[in-house]
Amino acid sequence: MSSDDPAEVNPDLYRVVFENERVRVLEYLDHPGDMTRPHIHPDSVMITASAFDRRLVHGDQEVTVHLEAGEVRWLDAQTHSGHNIGANDTHTFFVELKEPRLSGSTTERTLGPSAP
Amino acid sequence: MSSDDPAEVNPDLYRVVFENERVRVLEYLDHPGDMTRPHIHPDSVMITASAFDRRLVHGDQEVTVHLEAGEVRWLDAQTHSGHNIGANDTHTFFVELKEPRLSGSTTERTLGPSAP
Repeated sequence: MSSDDPAEVNPDLYRVVFENERVRVLEYLDHPGDMTRPHIHPDSVMITASAFDRRLVHGDQEVTVHLEAGEVRWLDAQTHSGHNIGANDTHTFFVELKEPRLSGSTTERTLGPSAP
Repeated sequence: MSSDDPAEVNPDLYRVVFENERVRVLEYLDHPGDMTRPHIHPDSVMITASAFDRRLVHGDQEVTVHLEAGEVRWLDAQTHSGHNIGANDTHTFFVELKEPRLSGSTTERTLGPSAP
C-alpha cells in the first residue's frame, strides 16, 4: 500500500484486523470531532458497528453520510478524508479487496458509500 | 450460485443484503437449536455481530466454534452445515468474494473460520 494507506496515515483510527492474499480488513474507531487525513480505499465493503454522521471530502466534492449500526455498503475505490460530525463514536469495518477488478465496469465512481 | 447456495437452501436464516459484480454480502440470523442444511460458501470474510457457539460439520469432519461479537475471520471456500449449540442467537455477516482466486494458493483449506 502507498503512504496514502489509511492504516499508515491514521494509525490511531484505523487498525488492520485481518489480512491474506485476497483481502485486508480494517476496523475504524473514532470520537466526535475526529478527522482523518486524506487516504485511499480500494474497492471495499463497509459494515457498520455503530450509527454515525460523517462528512467525506475529496477535492471540491463533499458528501454527508448518516448510517445506522449493522448497515452494509459498497465503497468504490477512492481517495477522501472524513470528519465525524455527529455526537457519537464511529465504529465500522472495511473489507478491502486486494485483487484488481476483473470486470471493466465503466460505472462512474461514487464519493462515499453506495446507496443501499 | 448453485442450489447449494445458503440463501436458497436456508432462506429463513440467510438474507442477501448487498450484491454487485465483485461481492455478495449475506446476513445470517438464527436462534438456539437452529440447524442449516449443507451449503457452499465461496472464499469469504465473516464479521460477527453477536457472540455465538456453533458446531460445523462436513462429512466426517466436525469443528466447534466460539466467537465474540465484533470478530473478523476468513472462511476458506467450503461446504458445511451448521448448528447453533449455544444459548444465544447467532448474528453474523459474510462478505463473499465472487471472483476466482488469482493466486494459486495450495494451502490446505480449513473447515470453519480461520484462526484469528
